[in-house]
Formats: sequence, C-alpha cells, structure tokens
Amino acid sequence: MTVLVDPWGSMLIEDYERLLKEFGLEPFSQSLFPQPNRIMRRGVVFAGQDLGIIADCIKKKKPFYALSGIMPSGEKLHLGNKMVVENLRYFQDHGAETYILVADLESAAARGVSIEEARKRALDFHIPAYIALGLDPKKTTFYFQSENMDVIQVAFEASKKITLNEFRAAYGSADPGKIMSSVTQIGDMLYPQLKKRMPGVIPVGIDQAPHLRLARDYIRRAKDKKYVLISSMYHKFTPALNGDFKMSKSKPESCIELPEDLESVKRKILKAKTGGRKTLEEHRRLGGIPEEDMVFELLKQHLIEDDAELMHIYKEYTSGKMTSGELKQLAIHKMDHFMTAFTKNLTKARKHVKQLHFVQ
Amino acid sequence: MTVLVDPWGSMLIEDYERLLKEFGLEPFSQSLFPQPNRIMRRGVVFAGQDLGIIADCIKKKKPFYALSGIMPSGEKLHLGNKMVVENLRYFQDHGAETYILVADLESAAARGVSIEEARKRALDFHIPAYIALGLDPKKTTFYFQSENMDVIQVAFEASKKITLNEFRAAYGSADPGKIMSSVTQIGDMLYPQLKKRMPGVIPVGIDQAPHLRLARDYIRRAKDKKYVLISSMYHKFTPALNGDFKMSKSKPESCIELPEDLESVKRKILKAKTGGRKTLEEHRRLGGIPEEDMVFELLKQHLIEDDAELMHIYKEYTSGKMTSGELKQLAIHKMDHFMTAFTKNLTKARKHVKQLHFVQ
Repeated sequence: MTVLVDPWGSMLIEDYERLLKEFGLEPFSQSLFPQPNRIMRRGVVFAGQDLGIIADCIKKKKPFYALSGIMPSGEKLHLGNKMVVENLRYFQDHGAETYILVADLESAAARGVSIEEARKRALDFHIPAYIALGLDPKKTTFYFQSENMDVIQVAFEASKKITLNEFRAAYGSADPGKIMSSVTQIGDMLYPQLKKRMPGVIPVGIDQAPHLRLARDYIRRAKDKKYVLISSMYHKFTPALNGDFKMSKSKPESCIELPEDLESVKRKILKAKTGGRKTLEEHRRLGGIPEEDMVFELLKQHLIEDDAELMHIYKEYTSGKMTSGELKQLAIHKMDHFMTAFTKNLTKARKHVKQLHFVQ
Repeated sequence: MTVLVDPWGSMLIEDYERLLKEFGLEPFSQSLFPQPNRIMRRGVVFAGQDLGIIADCIKKKKPFYALSGIMPSGEKLHLGNKMVVENLRYFQDHGAETYILVADLESAAARGVSIEEARKRALDFHIPAYIALGLDPKKTTFYFQSENMDVIQVAFEASKKITLNEFRAAYGSADPGKIMSSVTQIGDMLYPQLKKRMPGVIPVGIDQAPHLRLARDYIRRAKDKKYVLISSMYHKFTPALNGDFKMSKSKPESCIELPEDLESVKRKILKAKTGGRKTLEEHRRLGGIPEEDMVFELLKQHLIEDDAELMHIYKEYTSGKMTSGELKQLAIHKMDHFMTAFTKNLTKARKHVKQLHFVQ
C-alpha cells in the first residue's frame, strides 16, 4: 500500500494527477460554483469530494457549513492558511455556516503548548489573523477543542468504528497519538451536524486528504447516526521559492510567513528560482518560462487578483519584454502591499476578538 | 508474548501466582495496613503495586487518593463491584480523598447507551448502589467523564507518549477503540493529581492489571509532568457457582447479581458446586472440602464478616459435622440478609443523590 501523503510530515507530493486517482478525488471544476475565487479559477484548487452537494446547497439556498481549524502552537501563519481562509470566505459569502476550531488539545499534547498558552496565542494572533485574511467574524462560530465535549464524544464513537488497519492504510502508520488526533478531527468535522444534519465542506491542503478519507469512511459506516456525508475541497501547495514542491519552515529561506517583515521577504524573493533565461539577450529572444518561475507562481496564487492583469504579465514575461528581475520587483511591491494591509488588518481584528461568537 | 489478562474480555486466569510474576506485582501483605478489611485478611486481595507508599500515607496521615469508576451501561452490579467498594471504603476510612467517575463517554461509544441515559442510570442506580455497598458519599467526589475535560487533556498527552507496541504488549491487540478507552482511563487515574500531586491507589479486579501497567509506564516516562506514581491493589475474582474461574453474565446460573431477588439466588445456590462428599456417610467420615466449595467461597469472600465465625464453619464443615446442604442453607440465609439490607440501603441512598459532590 503506497501512502502518498502524510498530513503530519513533510513528504513531498510529486504528482497531483496521481493523487486524484489514489484518493478517488474528483477533479475540481470551477463551473460548479458561482463567482469562483482566485485560487478556484486558477487551478490551485484542483480537487474535491462531493462538491456537487455543496454547489446544490448554494444554488438552492439550503443550509450547509464550512469548517476549518487553527493550530495555535506556531507564532506565524503560512500561505496555506491563507488559501484555506480564502476558500472559507468563499463559502461564507455563499451562505455557509462557518466554524473555526482552535486545536488546543492537540497543541498541548503534541507540541507542548499549554491549553492556557494556546488560548492566549489563538486570541492574540491566530484568530485575528484569520479575520485579517478575510474571514467574516460576524458570520463565524469559534470554539476551543478543550471546551467542546461534543467533539470528544464523536471522537470516542469514531474510535470504536475504525480499525487499526484503516488507520494504517490512511496514514502509513498508526501510532496512538495520531489515532487520537485523527478521531478528534472527525469529531470536529461533524460537530456542526450535531445540532442540525446538513452538508458541510472542509477546504484543506491536499496533505489533509487522509483525514477526510477516514472521516468519510466513518460517516458512511455509522448509519445509525444519520450524519450527512461531508464534502472536501483541496488546494495545491504554494511551491517553495527555491523550486521545492512545498514551502517548509525547516527551510526558512524558501518560505514566506505571515506576517514577515518586508526586508526579509525581499531578500527571499530576490534569491528565488525563476523561469528566466541565462542571459538578457536570450531572455528577450526566447521569453521567460512562468511555469518554472516561483515568483510568477507567487503572483498567480496570492498577489494578483485580477485575471486580466495576470494574463498581461504572463504575456510580457513569455514574450521576453519583462525580465525576471522586473517580475521580482513587481512581486516585492505587491508583497509589500499585502503584508502592510495584513498587519494593519491584524491590529484592527485584535480589537474585535472580545465580540466573537464562541461556543462552549 | 503471552497476554494473560484481557480487561475487555472474559479470558480465564488460571494461576494467580503466574500473574504476580507476569505483571511484576507484589504479593499483598495485610500486615502493611492497620485493621485490614475482610477481603484483605482472607487472601482475596492478593497483589498490589507500590502499596507501601499508601501504607506510609496512612501511617503519617499524608494526603493520598483512592479512585474507581462506574460503567453505567449495565442495569446491575456484580460481586466484583462490591469488592472494589469495600476496598475504596477501607482507604476512605483511612484518610483517602475518594473519587468515583462515571464512564459515560465509554458507555456511549462502546455500548450504545447515550450520555443522557448513562447519567440517568448512574444517578438512579449505580451511584446509590455504591453508597449502599459502603461508600461514604460525604467523603466522595463524583464526576462524569463527559464533563471532565481535564481527563481528556491527560488522555491526549498520554496518547502521544505510548507506542502501538506497548498497547499490543499490554492487551494482546491494539484497536483504536481500546486505545481511546485506555488513555482516557489514564486521564481518570491521574485526574486527582491535577490539583495536587499526591500518591493514589486504584483498587481493581486483576483483569484491570494491563490498564495499570500502561498508566504506570506512562507516569514514569512523563517526567516533566511530575505525577506521583500510582499504586494498585488487586482482588481475585469470586468464582462462579458452577466452579468456573469467574462469574460471568453470559452464564447467569453461575452468577449472582446485585440486586437479585431471593428466589433466584436461592435456586442458584442450591445448584452450586460444593466440596461435599458423595454420600452422607462418607461426608461425616471424611468431612467436606471448603477449598472446592463455591458456597464456602461465597461465605468467605462476601457473607461472613467475623473471622471466628468463618473458622467455626470451616471446622464444622471439614470435620463432617456440617453438610453441604446445611452450608447452602446458611449461605441462602446470609444472602437473604445481605440482599435485603442492600435493597433497603439502595432506596435510602437514592434520596441523597442530589446532595452528592459532583465536579464539572
């Protein structure tokens, strides 16, 4: 049994096509959804499971939910979090009841950040940061795992229905800590259904596919509980600036964090792998290769909202009119703009944390 | 790897001596404790781990705790529960802070009894029954697992520190449901220490030894948590009336439940395996064999408090003066007395449930 992705590790995923097949995912079709967002339009969102159910809810204005979690151990976010928030926001704007959980139990047990410290960090940084990235706090329900016994109860039930071999098949290994985390995540994913059975969508990075597989398998089996099968939506990773498949904190030079000061971002972008040619003459003649350019990828995935603007840049670059250096300067400029806005919004969001809707 | 006991199953334990060795248990010495109770005096309590620590607390009047759990799925108790309560009461009388948890998460997940139903049953039957069996409600702290997030937090932590192989070594298998139960039990066992690090003793049937082993191994390893190593005290099973090693609900004729109506108990005792001889003449001449007599065992373990009285019966029986029939009539008489008192106390205890000390 080949296990392709490990949500806890840093295993590389070389072939998104292969993943579609391996996990039985549906290729994402933006035509399913009205006004698809930037990453939905640009193939960054590339797969899903039963997204038709969610599209139908949007179309018919039927209740559904979107859910994601915050791991409050880190002191920074990454661009993957940004994509999750953008997708949550998309569903939120299209009628989803939105839930954000703070995985403080997990951060206490696995990362040595106490429940108290996790709460502090989540309130001081992670939740405001999610709001700064676009989440509408007025339409969002937040909770801390450590205060949500309903989640634990579902986790208990799920633990009785999933075999060790299923865990092994999903994750490649099955140690008790991972099992505990995984069943608790199933509890999180189903929590909104405890009050009202309804479809739900979990937007995640592709590394989370094993969790979704286990959860969906459990739901299908737990017929007596009458849960509605949850849908998933997957985005690709933002590639590392050096061309690696995925940004990783273990290689800080290849990775942009949120927030990160401009000097640091600038230095990293200037060293990034580009799709430029060896000489200026050659570049003018043959044009740059955006598909191999990490800076173009950054613009495409994160920094340029307008499709026409991106297309213009694409043409300028492939025609050789625009150099890699100019592309980098543009990215630095845009990143400056983004980080400044993010930091400003973060400060603003912090002030509103007390008004958030927390469930206990 | 031979696994001798399975706390979830009905595996027979043929040789208590072997268990002592296999689990690294200390033979129980009643001389450790002041005024040992009936089952401590009579070798029914036969093993323990680090009971010297508890004896020292009693001697020096230092704080310690005793803890046990109620599984609220069943509608009856058994004689094993009775022994646990007697041992809890012993420690309670000698200064222990006493904790009783209601394993409602477990009963909901594993036995399909909802949290609400489990609470109802526990309040209506199990807790009053424990009080009727001798637990002092004024000195006892009760909690429901489903309301105790501190327990879950310790469970999470333990799950990260115990390997799959350790679970397998302890239980012979390691399915996710058992892992979840087991780490939650570790959370329960350590819960009293969250407020105050102190020694604690868990009195249990020998089938629970694997849980204790895992918990103790975890405590030793989790040095940063500074838990005090917990002690354990084990009692033997009450043998089945037909001579099987252990009473089992799957063979109701060999098993006495609490409560059980006298006619039913009487019928079962009259059919019990005895140590009597084939003919009356032979019995008078050779005497009965108490060691092979399930009715004598019942008297010894449960029905006769006074050692001198038991010794008198022993002599009468081994000398042949007392027949197996007379022994049975005595047991029926004593059981009648016990069940009547138990039922009466149960009714009385029910009235006081609202005054109990529950933590949330």
